[in-house]
Amino acid sequence: MTQRGLLIVLSGPSGVGKGTVRKAIFEDDGVDFRYSISATTRQPRVGEVDGQDYFFVSKEDFEEKIQAGEMLEYAQYVGNYYGTPRSFIEETLASGRDVFLEIDVQGALQVKSKMPEGVYIFLTPPDIKNLRSRLEGRGTDSAEVIDQRVEAAKDELKKMINYNYAVENDVVDLAVDRIKAIITAERLKVSRVLDQIAE
Amino acid sequence: MTQRGLLIVLSGPSGVGKGTVRKAIFEDDGVDFRYSISATTRQPRVGEVDGQDYFFVSKEDFEEKIQAGEMLEYAQYVGNYYGTPRSFIEETLASGRDVFLEIDVQGALQVKSKMPEGVYIFLTPPDIKNLRSRLEGRGTDSAEVIDQRVEAAKDELKKMINYNYAVENDVVDLAVDRIKAIITAERLKVSRVLDQIAE
Repeated sequence: MTQRGLLIVLSGPSGVGKGTVRKAIFEDDGVDFRYSISATTRQPRVGEVDGQDYFFVSKEDFEEKIQAGEMLEYAQYVGNYYGTPRSFIEETLASGRDVFLEIDVQGALQVKSKMPEGVYIFLTPPDIKNLRSRLEGRGTDSAEVIDQRVEAAKDELKKMINYNYAVENDVVDLAVDRIKAIITAERLKVSRVLDQIAE
Repeated sequence: MTQRGLLIVLSGPSGVGKGTVRKAIFEDDGVDFRYSISATTRQPRVGEVDGQDYFFVSKEDFEEKIQAGEMLEYAQYVGNYYGTPRSFIEETLASGRDVFLEIDVQGALQVKSKMPEGVYIFLTPPDIKNLRSRLEGRGTDSAEVIDQRVEAAKDELKKMINYNYAVENDVVDLAVDRIKAIITAERLKVSRVLDQIAE
């Protein structure tokens, strides 16, 4: 009877402003997402609450969850594991609430391989479409430097092809509006509406 | 260099309010679509302008266009042909403007077979998801009548599967907002953004 929630994955190159956009989305009154809670093997810091800031688990538990396919993605950082538990997301989606996950490109691709039905949004730097003409117009970089910067941008953009949507982060509020439009549209997709009517 | 426009096709069962929604969209300041102009073999009425109200053509011309695959869809009504010429839409899309087409279900499916890259939106009557419980709750119809109405609604909804999006026409302004969100999202699809960057 309950319509399944959407998994919304916001990703993009480092430094593009994923955290700022995520924060603005969660401050928006028109939005009611559940933020995906990560699991980690590091010790809780003062004030951190298990099941709220993180799921704090032992190294053995974490490795068991990896083996059981319970981690949608994970990575090691300064000797500790960090990862995204599948069960929390599955239960939240089943309850009808949307889950929002902000994650780097490598993590997003791992999640996508396991939950391809999610909505994968790639946040791009402003003006990437006009990068070359913008650099040339500025007249401060050599042709060689411009070529290098355009090549670097191309490498970033090649990752975009794995995503469903590309959102330019020119102005944070505009990026948020675009993401909200994407989510509205995704809910109206015939495939999702028919699933809902089918019950 | 110019981004190709979107073909937006609004369709749905007769009586659902397609014309009202289309009118509200065209009155919306935030929207700048070109309305698809039909071709017809009927005589112009007083005040009607060729290339604005219709493309007025002879029967021979119309039939030649059908043969040449130049009609995206067509039908006969009271002895005259009516149809959607492909060239006008193609030229408008190539110039970077979006084209809006409001059309019945049969026509929409013909257009889709020829231009599958369009955005096909099915307008549904309000509350179709809860039709049975609503009819039962009202308590005025027999079980038999309710079954018949639900079956009729199912037949309508089966056509929905050919569309990309389903938009409920509960309140016209809300339907317009949903359609605007769909168009925003469609423009942000990675496939379209990469096409644009590719130039």
